[in-house]
Amino acid sequence: MDGKKIFRIGFIGMGTVGQGVWKHLWRDRDIMQRRFGAEYELAKACVRDINKKRDIEITRQQMTGDPYSVVNDPSIDIVCELMGGTDKALELTLAALKQGKVVVSANKAVICKHGAQIFETAQKYGGKYFFEASVAGGIPIIKVLREGLVANRFSLIYGILNGTCNYILTRMERENAPYEAIVEDARRLGYVEADESLDLDGWDAAHKISILAYLAHGVWANPEKDMLVSGIRGVKLEDMHWASENDARIKLVAAARRTGNSLFVSVYPALLPMADVVANVNDVYNAVALSGDVVGRTVHIGRGAGQDATASAVIADIADAIKSLAVSAPCSLSVAKDSNLHLASLEEVSGEFYLRMEVKDEAGVLAQVASLLAGENISIELLQQKKHGVEGRVWLLLTTHECTEASINRACKKLEDSEIIFGKPFVLRIFKGL
Amino acid sequence: MDGKKIFRIGFIGMGTVGQGVWKHLWRDRDIMQRRFGAEYELAKACVRDINKKRDIEITRQQMTGDPYSVVNDPSIDIVCELMGGTDKALELTLAALKQGKVVVSANKAVICKHGAQIFETAQKYGGKYFFEASVAGGIPIIKVLREGLVANRFSLIYGILNGTCNYILTRMERENAPYEAIVEDARRLGYVEADESLDLDGWDAAHKISILAYLAHGVWANPEKDMLVSGIRGVKLEDMHWASENDARIKLVAAARRTGNSLFVSVYPALLPMADVVANVNDVYNAVALSGDVVGRTVHIGRGAGQDATASAVIADIADAIKSLAVSAPCSLSVAKDSNLHLASLEEVSGEFYLRMEVKDEAGVLAQVASLLAGENISIELLQQKKHGVEGRVWLLLTTHECTEASINRACKKLEDSEIIFGKPFVLRIFKGL
Repeated sequence: MDGKKIFRIGFIGMGTVGQGVWKHLWRDRDIMQRRFGAEYELAKACVRDINKKRDIEITRQQMTGDPYSVVNDPSIDIVCELMGGTDKALELTLAALKQGKVVVSANKAVICKHGAQIFETAQKYGGKYFFEASVAGGIPIIKVLREGLVANRFSLIYGILNGTCNYILTRMERENAPYEAIVEDARRLGYVEADESLDLDGWDAAHKISILAYLAHGVWANPEKDMLVSGIRGVKLEDMHWASENDARIKLVAAARRTGNSLFVSVYPALLPMADVVANVNDVYNAVALSGDVVGRTVHIGRGAGQDATASAVIADIADAIKSLAVSAPCSLSVAKDSNLHLASLEEVSGEFYLRMEVKDEAGVLAQVASLLAGENISIELLQQKKHGVEGRVWLLLTTHECTEASINRACKKLEDSEIIFGKPFVLRIFKGL
Repeated sequence: MDGKKIFRIGFIGMGTVGQGVWKHLWRDRDIMQRRFGAEYELAKACVRDINKKRDIEITRQQMTGDPYSVVNDPSIDIVCELMGGTDKALELTLAALKQGKVVVSANKAVICKHGAQIFETAQKYGGKYFFEASVAGGIPIIKVLREGLVANRFSLIYGILNGTCNYILTRMERENAPYEAIVEDARRLGYVEADESLDLDGWDAAHKISILAYLAHGVWANPEKDMLVSGIRGVKLEDMHWASENDARIKLVAAARRTGNSLFVSVYPALLPMADVVANVNDVYNAVALSGDVVGRTVHIGRGAGQDATASAVIADIADAIKSLAVSAPCSLSVAKDSNLHLASLEEVSGEFYLRMEVKDEAGVLAQVASLLAGENISIELLQQKKHGVEGRVWLLLTTHECTEASINRACKKLEDSEIIFGKPFVLRIFKGL
């Protein structure tokens, strides 16, 4: 940071996503600026109601009711279009791009409907358009497809692109509960869009797969005219039962499949074999599987919607926007080191463990093992004694409750030194993900 | 393409990966150039033996035995270091970076050992260093972590980073076969590195998680000094049985877990609960799960090694390298349209289907359904008649063999118009991934 350009960011729309982006850019400003390699300012936000109470740090002076006071402000470099809808959003997007600004958008509907015009305008006027948040929320699938897998042609792209439908299908299966009851619950939880058809009839997923298909193949498929689009209304428990009897799961699958020079873009409820990792993606999670001609198959899983997941994608676009605007792009190697951080010692790290050991088949051996572990404050959770192929020996298998790495090390050393064991105990850690 | 700069690419090392990169850059030159937004030339390759027969299109003039004739050639912009090893690779990398060149590397060992020096040299001399292929092969995890999820701090990064170990563990479980037999098979198939300890004792995975931990936290963990590293030797079928009885699977898990200001970087065989999608990643596939403070959890799965998967990552780096070198960065919206491509009609698209319908509980109904389907050339694979709650009705559930979307549409229309059915048939497609 050497007193150079400060990038000014404007917002159109301060709903859930807008507030999420504002919140993180405000709260984590220091670390974000270090990562972006540049300073930024949250300049202005166009909101529907200035007087509404919001959970973010925003002043009255930063708010406006007029989107053009954001779009036409020459000091604003980056416009985040987070208002939704198509007509007005298009108008404002084009106006910003014509001024050579960067527009960051989460608006899949406007891209699907007017993408060709938006991209053409950006190209013509030197504006830039970033839209990572429009597909699959927090999964950076557009970056993966366009940059990380740039070497590939994609014969098949498919996945779960609507978290609401996935949530409904997951709960129907898990609770053996009918569609209507779960939809009602999802509505109550605010998971279903105001225009329900977007979620339940597959149109939202259709917008998203249409964008991915365009990025992979350069052809726009219109959901109404060119695609097969069918939602999850009508899925019954009878279908769920059939699926589970046939080792499959019902998912709303969005797909773009290319066969020779023919491209089929679709959204429909489908039976996915359980062996497909995508079938194991449940609740509000999204998944995208890509079959590239060089890389083979990759799968990417994450939250498809929600304030924070979508904000994560919008912020990634803002970082790319700043990089593309900075005269000297920030060095891609600057990693923000946290000066407080230290590498953990084994005394600090704890977990649960599995131990297997070959012990003498004698009275008292089990008691010795147990007391030795207890001496290190290790308590046993499960224990099994198993037949060993060799006479006079048995396998002892056990898992522990939480203890430190250091105490397991000491216990294993003591076991190894004892008379009762052959060789060393074999240790597996029981890994706790998130 | 307007006769501007042609980017010249040099190679050091023409083993499996080098040949893969060369092959794809040569074969798909037109489409790659369109995607990169710039032209390139495969300038020179340093090989060990010029006379060796290779499966790629390379002339004698393009080959050299002297790596410095690549590194010091002022016309070469991008040096792909694909030779492996640490000392010589470091020397050549530094020499290239000192000339302000871009170095693209797949060499996890040299990064893990000398990353600090390499990055410092790049920064000092204006060189650039890209290393997507060094971790998790075809999965663009470095780009995902640094760019796509730039908004996040990562409390936990973990996954399967060594395909060879995953292959061995998968086969042990699937075939209920002991470690030694499967390792022997893996050796025969060429899956195990010449220095076996890199794979089997966890050092290869340690190099990779060390790189990810650095990118996320800015601290280098030395595998020998700062990490817990333990490989898969010693895993026995007894452990596999315990795992499956406890709804878990054994994986070699590499992890960087941050708790407050303490960072623990490790590689060890662990029990992963089956509910974790990472436990379902088998064979030579890799997986990386990231827990970000904004995005939540994302998981990325793909091939971790092999000629083509690694080439995919190297080529992505070359594309980024060209973007970073181009005076005017190529517009990020140029999507290469394939002029031959058309959107498929429903007559072209075929698949297998599941139909559920509510029909009259009468003699002859089944025969009518069957003959109506046969009339559209649809043959039945499975069929089940199920009790319906309403008197005089039954559920008919069936799946078909492959037929076209158009024929299913016609059949459903005819069923709907028939006397035997209540309402419409409900259709699920049986989705075939790859």
